[in-house]
Amino acid sequence: MRKQEDFSEWYNEVVELANLTDKRYPIKGMNVWTPYGWRLMRLIDTFIREECDATGHEEVCFPLLIPETEFKKEKEHIKGFDAEVYWVTHAGLNELDVRLLLRPTSETAMYPIFALWVRSHTDLPLKVYQIVNTFRYETKQTRAFIRVREIHFFESHTCHVDEADAQRQVEEDFVILENLMERLCLPYLLLRRTEWDKFPGAYYTVGVDTLLPDGRSLQLGSIHHYRENFSRPFNITYEDEKGEHRFVHQTTFGMSERLVGAVVAVHGDDKGLVLPPAISPFQVVIVPIPTKGNVERVAEECQRLRAELAAAGLRVKLDDGDERPGSKFNNWEIRGVPLRLELGMRDIEGGKVAYARRDTGGKGALDRSAIVPQVHEVLRAIAVDMRARAATASGAAIQDLDSLDRVPEKVVRFGWCGEEECGHRFEERTGLKMLGTPYLKEEYRGRCVVCGREVDRAAYAARSM
Amino acid sequence: MRKQEDFSEWYNEVVELANLTDKRYPIKGMNVWTPYGWRLMRLIDTFIREECDATGHEEVCFPLLIPETEFKKEKEHIKGFDAEVYWVTHAGLNELDVRLLLRPTSETAMYPIFALWVRSHTDLPLKVYQIVNTFRYETKQTRAFIRVREIHFFESHTCHVDEADAQRQVEEDFVILENLMERLCLPYLLLRRTEWDKFPGAYYTVGVDTLLPDGRSLQLGSIHHYRENFSRPFNITYEDEKGEHRFVHQTTFGMSERLVGAVVAVHGDDKGLVLPPAISPFQVVIVPIPTKGNVERVAEECQRLRAELAAAGLRVKLDDGDERPGSKFNNWEIRGVPLRLELGMRDIEGGKVAYARRDTGGKGALDRSAIVPQVHEVLRAIAVDMRARAATASGAAIQDLDSLDRVPEKVVRFGWCGEEECGHRFEERTGLKMLGTPYLKEEYRGRCVVCGREVDRAAYAARSM
Repeated sequence: MRKQEDFSEWYNEVVELANLTDKRYPIKGMNVWTPYGWRLMRLIDTFIREECDATGHEEVCFPLLIPETEFKKEKEHIKGFDAEVYWVTHAGLNELDVRLLLRPTSETAMYPIFALWVRSHTDLPLKVYQIVNTFRYETKQTRAFIRVREIHFFESHTCHVDEADAQRQVEEDFVILENLMERLCLPYLLLRRTEWDKFPGAYYTVGVDTLLPDGRSLQLGSIHHYRENFSRPFNITYEDEKGEHRFVHQTTFGMSERLVGAVVAVHGDDKGLVLPPAISPFQVVIVPIPTKGNVERVAEECQRLRAELAAAGLRVKLDDGDERPGSKFNNWEIRGVPLRLELGMRDIEGGKVAYARRDTGGKGALDRSAIVPQVHEVLRAIAVDMRARAATASGAAIQDLDSLDRVPEKVVRFGWCGEEECGHRFEERTGLKMLGTPYLKEEYRGRCVVCGREVDRAAYAARSM
Repeated sequence: MRKQEDFSEWYNEVVELANLTDKRYPIKGMNVWTPYGWRLMRLIDTFIREECDATGHEEVCFPLLIPETEFKKEKEHIKGFDAEVYWVTHAGLNELDVRLLLRPTSETAMYPIFALWVRSHTDLPLKVYQIVNTFRYETKQTRAFIRVREIHFFESHTCHVDEADAQRQVEEDFVILENLMERLCLPYLLLRRTEWDKFPGAYYTVGVDTLLPDGRSLQLGSIHHYRENFSRPFNITYEDEKGEHRFVHQTTFGMSERLVGAVVAVHGDDKGLVLPPAISPFQVVIVPIPTKGNVERVAEECQRLRAELAAAGLRVKLDDGDERPGSKFNNWEIRGVPLRLELGMRDIEGGKVAYARRDTGGKGALDRSAIVPQVHEVLRAIAVDMRARAATASGAAIQDLDSLDRVPEKVVRFGWCGEEECGHRFEERTGLKMLGTPYLKEEYRGRCVVCGREVDRAAYAARSM
């Protein structure tokens, strides 16, 4: 497996060898979550729930199927999804009067109900989220976690008294996002999408992009301000303090299983996965190193070590199978377990535990008597180092572009005057996709790479995955 | 709300007033999980996960859609579900070559993959489960949690070397079930279904039935032994220790959101829900009882009390809204919170906390200085009493039947010779549905209520909901 040589092939191979997913299900792009992959996904979900609960969002679960009649209420929205949805047309032996579609996202499932839930300004803000699977009929080549047809998905939906309060929600979403990405050790860009690339029905869209080793960008999620674009067709109104009826302002925040894909792609190496400690199904694996005559003693000490780490709240696996230690090392390296502990007679007698870090391959010994705090310390250091390496790589993956003559196979940053015409021309001439402009202002002085006007804001573009 | 007078109307009303679900979604039988209902369901899911994890099951997540070609592999299975499934026939603007159906249950989604996962006897037993939504096109009248078209569902699927090992799994499932039902404080019958009522494709089916106050039975789940009935058409084989290829024996265990329906129906009363402490979204609600001049002091003490209970791991809600205490009492009674604590100046000065039990209405005072252990003790007593009352009611709901002349509006127990002909005749003459025979042998001596033969085993029948 050579990540640098053929990233795409490396990605497919590592996902398969680590047994994160099974792609042999008889519908293309609908994959099976294996026990290992599902544990990883569920740990990510747990962090999303923690963040949402802490910010006063309530978890709900809306139906999967949406009547065509509801779906068509917001004109831009239906245009954006028309070619991408699955249609249920029959039930049992009957043809349905109104066709039903499998949710690609839940605006049109939730908003008829929001219209019933929201009555007064005292009902606002309404902040709910759900973690469900969504469906898109992808016609491009599918890829595990990154482009699939059944998508594990988080979506929060909020209603507010006015545009400013909805804007505060967008900013709260940035904090939720930052807390999550810190655990995943993933750097990202927050880019305000161009007008022609925003979410169907949105007032504006902020894309969350991470940069892949092959110079492409990967959208991990997005945050939308809808203003009144959905509340008007769905008639979501409230009575304000003066007794007047007003339309709510809405926002959404969505992220998908692409988070798993990004973790694989950004952190993995030629030996396999490298998982951030916060989301690794096992944070520590213990491999016994017995020699003749001490098999039982070593097994016993390993059990004791396992119990002590588990009692401290660590996710720990004792690999007491029959394989050779070397083969166990490989197996857990492929699966990306952050920290390996090895225990043989010499370690036991010396009061030590040998360790190997998955991320750097660094080795050393910990004190058996202080094992819990020392393991926590190594895991913390792994996370810090993974974040730093990923940030460095991400920075190096971006190149400033002064002219359209030589376009590198990278994410590019360039001056853009903001005119749609220049944007389209840029995309046509470079074959890249505009990702948008930094949501948080970056220092920049230059000229529009198309029309030459002076500008103080950059735009980003990339081949997208 | 009069539970005894019109159970059916009472049920619908209590579900709505407690805001457990929203039935106004524009597809009949597909309801919205509200924050409160979803918390309750997720707490039940948490216990199911704990039990499954502790017995070596691994959680997975299989795709929702199943190709018609896979679904048709087991002949009885397709016959059983043909009239009940939703069909996806189009995707985007295309008509699909192979129609896809929304899983009504996941045998035919999982088993093509099990055929790839199982190679050798060392891969067995294979024990996986998932918690997902399933779909059935119900044509009967729908009812929240009890008869819906999108169903929140737990399903475990296992593969074994032989029939005896699969049988051991069935018995492990009974333990998992018992542990769960203890937390829900629900009594139940384990009945081996008749041959003509077993699951399509099963060798045998054990139904898990609970008895409702109106004399009907409600199937909460079922456990199936499949023998080789699915492994043959799906070609799930393993190599045994002698190198011979054998078909696996399989079992499944499924339970649905009907668990919520049963909790509502069995425990609720004329004031609303009565929730078992183990699954109640809030176990304790604190209502401040301020009087003039001490509003702040009471609020402060309530905050302190809340923090102390929360730190002890209790799910506690402090209702510090503007309503009168009496109106808060009603609100939390409807929602079924097991224990209400009230705190006013007199309590504070006396070092006491007043309490009211939701299940009995019993009132008293706890010591503020020992509040955590005393709250735990009251919650424990509530659960014990709820279990006892439900068991008594369940016992009283069963009536022995000696002849077919007078059939009461109850669950009936009667002698049955085991012949299919007598069973059918019983069902025709009484209009009841046979639930089957006790899986665990019960003492019984009598005669077949149809043919008069002497029998030592009873059967059960009821109007089913």
